[in-house]
Amino acid sequence: MKKKINAVQFGLGPIGQLCAKTILQKHSERINLVGAVDIDPSKVGKELGELLGIDKTGIEVESDIKNILKKKKVDLVFHTTTSFMSDVRKQLIDLIKLKLNIVSSTEELFFPRYRNREIAEEIDNLAKKFKVRVLGTGVNPGFVMDVLPSVLTQVCTSVKRIRVERVVNASKRRLPLQLKIGAGLKVSEFKEKKATGRFGHIGLVESLQFLAYVLNIQLDEIKEELDPIVTYKNLRTDYLTIQKGRVAGIHHRAIGFKDGNEVIELDLKMFIGDHRDYDAVYIDGEPPIKMKILNGVFGDTATVGSLINCGYLIFNAKPGLLTMADIGLPHGFFSQK
Amino acid sequence: MKKKINAVQFGLGPIGQLCAKTILQKHSERINLVGAVDIDPSKVGKELGELLGIDKTGIEVESDIKNILKKKKVDLVFHTTTSFMSDVRKQLIDLIKLKLNIVSSTEELFFPRYRNREIAEEIDNLAKKFKVRVLGTGVNPGFVMDVLPSVLTQVCTSVKRIRVERVVNASKRRLPLQLKIGAGLKVSEFKEKKATGRFGHIGLVESLQFLAYVLNIQLDEIKEELDPIVTYKNLRTDYLTIQKGRVAGIHHRAIGFKDGNEVIELDLKMFIGDHRDYDAVYIDGEPPIKMKILNGVFGDTATVGSLINCGYLIFNAKPGLLTMADIGLPHGFFSQK
Ligand SMILES: NC(=O)c1ccc[n+]([C@@H]2O[C@H](COP(=O)([O-])OP(=O)(O)OC[C@H]3O[C@@H](n4cnc5c(N)ncnc54)[C@H](OP(=O)(O)O)[C@@H]3O)[C@@H](O)[C@H]2O)c1
Ligand SMILES: NC(=O)c1ccc[n+]([C@@H]2O[C@H](COP(=O)([O-])OP(=O)(O)OC[C@H]3O[C@@H](n4cnc5c(N)ncnc54)[C@H](OP(=O)(O)O)[C@@H]3O)[C@@H](O)[C@H]2O)c1
Repeated sequence: MKKKINAVQFGLGPIGQLCAKTILQKHSERINLVGAVDIDPSKVGKELGELLGIDKTGIEVESDIKNILKKKKVDLVFHTTTSFMSDVRKQLIDLIKLKLNIVSSTEELFFPRYRNREIAEEIDNLAKKFKVRVLGTGVNPGFVMDVLPSVLTQVCTSVKRIRVERVVNASKRRLPLQLKIGAGLKVSEFKEKKATGRFGHIGLVESLQFLAYVLNIQLDEIKEELDPIVTYKNLRTDYLTIQKGRVAGIHHRAIGFKDGNEVIELDLKMFIGDHRDYDAVYIDGEPPIKMKILNGVFGDTATVGSLINCGYLIFNAKPGLLTMADIGLPHGFFSQK
Repeated sequence: MKKKINAVQFGLGPIGQLCAKTILQKHSERINLVGAVDIDPSKVGKELGELLGIDKTGIEVESDIKNILKKKKVDLVFHTTTSFMSDVRKQLIDLIKLKLNIVSSTEELFFPRYRNREIAEEIDNLAKKFKVRVLGTGVNPGFVMDVLPSVLTQVCTSVKRIRVERVVNASKRRLPLQLKIGAGLKVSEFKEKKATGRFGHIGLVESLQFLAYVLNIQLDEIKEELDPIVTYKNLRTDYLTIQKGRVAGIHHRAIGFKDGNEVIELDLKMFIGDHRDYDAVYIDGEPPIKMKILNGVFGDTATVGSLINCGYLIFNAKPGLLTMADIGLPHGFFSQK
């Protein structure tokens, strides 16, 4: 491990707040949080500790990172704002031009080289020019449906087909997540939302393309399917009441084809109900592998775990737009905190 | 992927034979097997295809790799002879001096920098001098109790304790493996064998030290425990009859301590009986993770899978004595064969 990293938290929604809090409480020996940025006027100017519900931190939320750079040397930005490349393009470019390394939870940044080829090339070129590293990571995309299945194939003499399943019970999750998966909608409303193209889980196709890239599969075609999961009984969460016949959540699939065969299938269900969370990877190969993570990988903490751990690991890589295949063996760190 | 790799299979026991056969049958598009070496006089001079029970290969088993080098350019050696560093030291040094990259199943080579520090340094220096890469890998050590648990911590904001379990049912495995785990011995004979120091699973401590290294844990102490698993009923395999009260296999544990606490526990059971195989990783951290591989990772194929896949991946790394943390994201490759 190198010197202590000076970092800024950029974006203070639930993920950014948890990231900042985790750094301060658990990783302060190796990451020095020197600033926090958000555009939300209700957050700007606030003492960060107050926002996070912890002790004073001496950090005031800024609307412009340049105010922080005037006073502090910054190595790394934890970027946690929005999901689409077109929306974060300008933010990333500005940060790169300030010579800041970036680890981001933007889903489309996880593997942007196909669906966002132009922006990806622009960012890659700029990152090389300004000698910084830019990486998209998280739990999904970032781990359960892409990195972990890739690593499981290390022991396979052949991989014929790979299927990944993630089942998330959203009953105990926060309201924005319950709304994000369409909980409580009528099926007709679900269909209208789906037609906007910005509904459903973001990053599933990026996970699939990452897997295909790593395993060296030239896919002929990718299909994406997004369907409502309808409840057959009345459901209740802390925030919502969902009548039977209404939407309880999403069933989102991405399938990669090669020579007419389904070779990769990613199957994600996020819904409200009384089912258990789990993650599973099934490799049809030699040897065959059936992996299950009991109770699943809890999303919010895991996203922050990936961000922070990769915040250390990206310095192993050369400057440029990176993927999770570029930073060495992914891993976390021992800590009693 | 770079140009086609020219490789030699060095050591033609069951693992080396399976490796050679797998390369020829499944990886011939990217690995060109140009030779095979063994010291066993009953193998030397034989047509490799005959030894492997497949079609003619045009390769004759040599006793000295130099005979192959006279005729062919060789990039890589799949080294599958024996388990201890002191035994393979000379073989590795000879291969390095011939400018050959090496991927090996030698268990102690998986992480030799503590228990075999001097030989490790010697090999590292030589490998750098002759600009070749040397890596120890396999299934265990090499994957289930070290690499995979490391990767699972990617999403953890803290790791307090890690426990890995591998349970192997040796009933259907080949006789040498059944004998290796002491099946059929009296408990007193087991104890005598244990006293030789060369009995039990090799590499468990190396797996533990790898995990500690990756997770950045300075261990105060390592304990190793090796006990017989005694059968309480008569058992029968294709090769052995084991009376009740006799040894059915081994229970081998390695435990790493920090500040008086068990922080890593590797627990391996290999025995004959009617139990199921499985692998499991339990991470006490944030988030907690309980991973299970149902039916386990089948050892022989998986060892060969690691050897071949890492045969491609080591070329990502700079010359020297490598570990599985040095070759990038470990993974396999798509193949319909
Ligand atoms: N890869 C993964 O596994 C993973 C997992 C979880 C979350 N994510 C993604 O990570 C992102 C953050 O998650 P979240 O739940 O915290 O999202 P969120 O609730 O939308 O919070 C984002 C925060 O960033 C602020 N922001 C937006 N644009 C900004 C800008 N240009 N400069 C500075 N701040 C800006 C927002 O302010 P306003 O409220 O004023 O807009 C808000 O405070 C989301 O895109 C989410 O989908 C990815
Ligand atoms: N890391 C892992 O996960 C993993 C998994 C499986 C196996 N392994 C290890 O991998 C090694 C190979 O396994 P195996 O089951 O095939 O072992 P094996 O049955 O002992 O076969 C080893 C072969 O190598 C030959 N050999 C020995 N010394 C040699 C030398 N100096 N030059 C050329 N050939 C030589 C042996 O010949 P002789 O019979 O004449 O000695 C034999 O044919 C073992 O050490 C095993 O423990 C590791």
